[in-house]
Amino acid sequence: MNYSKRMALVKPSAIRELHKLEHDPEVISFCGGYPDASLFPVENLRETYQSVISLDKLAFQYTHSQGDATLRQQIADKMQAEGVACDADNIVVLQGAQQGLDFAGKMFIDEGDTVLIEAPTFLGALIAFNTYEPHYIGIPMDSQGIDPDALEVVLKSGQAVKFLYTIPDFQNPAGVTLSADRRRRLVDLANRYDFYIVEDSPYRDMRYSGASVPPIKSFDSQGRVIFLGSFSKSLVPGLRLGWAVADKEIVQNFAQLKQAADTQCSTINMKVASAYLKTFDHASHVENIVRHYRHKRDVMMNTIADTFPDSVAHTNPEGGMFTWLTFPAGFDADQFLKATLLPRAKVAYVPGVHFYADTSHMPVNNARLSFSACTDEAIAEGVKRMGDVLRSYLG
Amino acid sequence: MNYSKRMALVKPSAIRELHKLEHDPEVISFCGGYPDASLFPVENLRETYQSVISLDKLAFQYTHSQGDATLRQQIADKMQAEGVACDADNIVVLQGAQQGLDFAGKMFIDEGDTVLIEAPTFLGALIAFNTYEPHYIGIPMDSQGIDPDALEVVLKSGQAVKFLYTIPDFQNPAGVTLSADRRRRLVDLANRYDFYIVEDSPYRDMRYSGASVPPIKSFDSQGRVIFLGSFSKSLVPGLRLGWAVADKEIVQNFAQLKQAADTQCSTINMKVASAYLKTFDHASHVENIVRHYRHKRDVMMNTIADTFPDSVAHTNPEGGMFTWLTFPAGFDADQFLKATLLPRAKVAYVPGVHFYADTSHMPVNNARLSFSACTDEAIAEGVKRMGDVLRSYLG
Repeated sequence: MNYSKRMALVKPSAIRELHKLEHDPEVISFCGGYPDASLFPVENLRETYQSVISLDKLAFQYTHSQGDATLRQQIADKMQAEGVACDADNIVVLQGAQQGLDFAGKMFIDEGDTVLIEAPTFLGALIAFNTYEPHYIGIPMDSQGIDPDALEVVLKSGQAVKFLYTIPDFQNPAGVTLSADRRRRLVDLANRYDFYIVEDSPYRDMRYSGASVPPIKSFDSQGRVIFLGSFSKSLVPGLRLGWAVADKEIVQNFAQLKQAADTQCSTINMKVASAYLKTFDHASHVENIVRHYRHKRDVMMNTIADTFPDSVAHTNPEGGMFTWLTFPAGFDADQFLKATLLPRAKVAYVPGVHFYADTSHMPVNNARLSFSACTDEAIAEGVKRMGDVLRSYLG
Repeated sequence: MNYSKRMALVKPSAIRELHKLEHDPEVISFCGGYPDASLFPVENLRETYQSVISLDKLAFQYTHSQGDATLRQQIADKMQAEGVACDADNIVVLQGAQQGLDFAGKMFIDEGDTVLIEAPTFLGALIAFNTYEPHYIGIPMDSQGIDPDALEVVLKSGQAVKFLYTIPDFQNPAGVTLSADRRRRLVDLANRYDFYIVEDSPYRDMRYSGASVPPIKSFDSQGRVIFLGSFSKSLVPGLRLGWAVADKEIVQNFAQLKQAADTQCSTINMKVASAYLKTFDHASHVENIVRHYRHKRDVMMNTIADTFPDSVAHTNPEGGMFTWLTFPAGFDADQFLKATLLPRAKVAYVPGVHFYADTSHMPVNNARLSFSACTDEAIAEGVKRMGDVLRSYLG
């Protein structure tokens, strides 16, 4: 085989391997980041496909690479309401926010260029960026998200940086949310040290408690922030629709990369998303699913509080799908999963090591738990089983 | 702006600019490669969305990056019937064949690597490959497709080659079809000189005359051919569904690139394509649209024969959407379009120069005419108007 160098950086996802556990009906898996399919507005989508196909003669024809114009306007309206100054020309429709990560990598990264990431971060972003062969620097986080002081230390060292990749809302995997002050400061640093910010916010609509924090993009005065949004969590993932909000020049570049990569998103799916948003009360739908996910989160966090030993720390997610566990120093979360938790309790999580780019400097005593896809009963039962094993294991 | 080097190679499509002409209702445009939307099986697709959404609880959930398993089996069955030994593990579902071009570039091309292309070739392929910074060598074609003797001259020179990109069936833009003997010979050369073949065949089902020629992939004994197919022409483009047939290792790599690039194709669209193929007589649908496109082709080719001066040569497409004109030496097809044809006849084509990678060694006296999207009347009228102007212009 005579592959490009970058193929050595494309590895099978360890998380996909873990997903195979989910086929064992006895295992309660907290691995996946899937939304709960029982909350999808299936009947409304069925009606919408009917009417769009009946009424629109071009529902199955090619369309613009930048995406359906009506849908772009609707997304712009939504982002405006969140404090982001934009119009339809600032929007490009993408095959999920994931495609925005691929395009950000393609647009900015030459081999060896530095990309700043949160440590830990979303594995899918690492997989996307890897194909462009960046050099990563991981910035530590605390309960308020990425630490801007640690970030500034890196920047002051004179390190040239292409962009910072951050998931400010209910971070995957850490479950923490970046404070408004820090958001403002990130933009100041980007302006001062001349780099871009890729703001990935697929869970933004899924807030269960606490006050909403404006997008980093809302503080952007120099067109340095690319905001990535998604319909995968608030609506359904199966349409494969996300978007970028950015400076018009960046949007035009994304549209050209889109033409090169896959021509466009599905015409019918874009028209259906647009008609659905026009016809149905999407805000009520989001309120409804937020109520369900809030309950799942509460079941998980309450059961953790009731059953886990005090030596196991956890984050307190205000939204999204994840909490991040920190076991005592010296605890190997991967080893514990395979040798103890799975065989004894039939419970699975994703060991924290999978969320770091730099395998030499990462803690091994973390794990990500997802509460999004399990029933309330399975969450309570799985966390309790895990707590029982942890209490006896940690003594 | 601090873009990657590759962004300098991503240019606005000149063809997109030409498409803007199509908004002028007086202009008869032979530019586009759009299929005829009046031939889409809209009612059957509407029914299929109904039943899939009603019956399948996971129609809107995430699924595998490699694509829906049932659809992959159906594609494998179709390719088997065309002489390609394969099963569902040899198939990956893509966001149109275009995505296969992006992935082939990503998988094989390091900066400066040599890619062999047909001269002229599909602009969308150049745009996709460009982002990986290849060195192109164009191989000339004749009425039987790419010239294997010219290809062998390049290979004998010792030039290392990553892959050959070819559109063997009703080539875009040239409208010619590669003979079976030459297909066999390309595979022999690939084996002998150690390169891959990317066989892009989106028009394969659209044969209007002449005998079908087996895919290059059917002669492949060493897993060196990646066949790219598409539902965009035989079914509809708006689902954004194509596929690759390849060696299992390559398919696994494509699936990983898919996960990195956009996670997966639309779940609902894959399930709908699969259910549609199961429920309806797709072969009859293809027969029906082939009859319509054959008639369009015949109208165009007959009107060319009746009205064009003998000094303008053309290819005789047995299928697909295009014929390729060769004007007399010294004729500038781009200049003629802008200064004469458009103002005088209100007819548009794509000048041939847009289909070459190497702008220094390309003929300027060619043009591509598409007959796919116009009505019979518009084809006859437009070609006649063009013939009138050409006769007076060429004397």
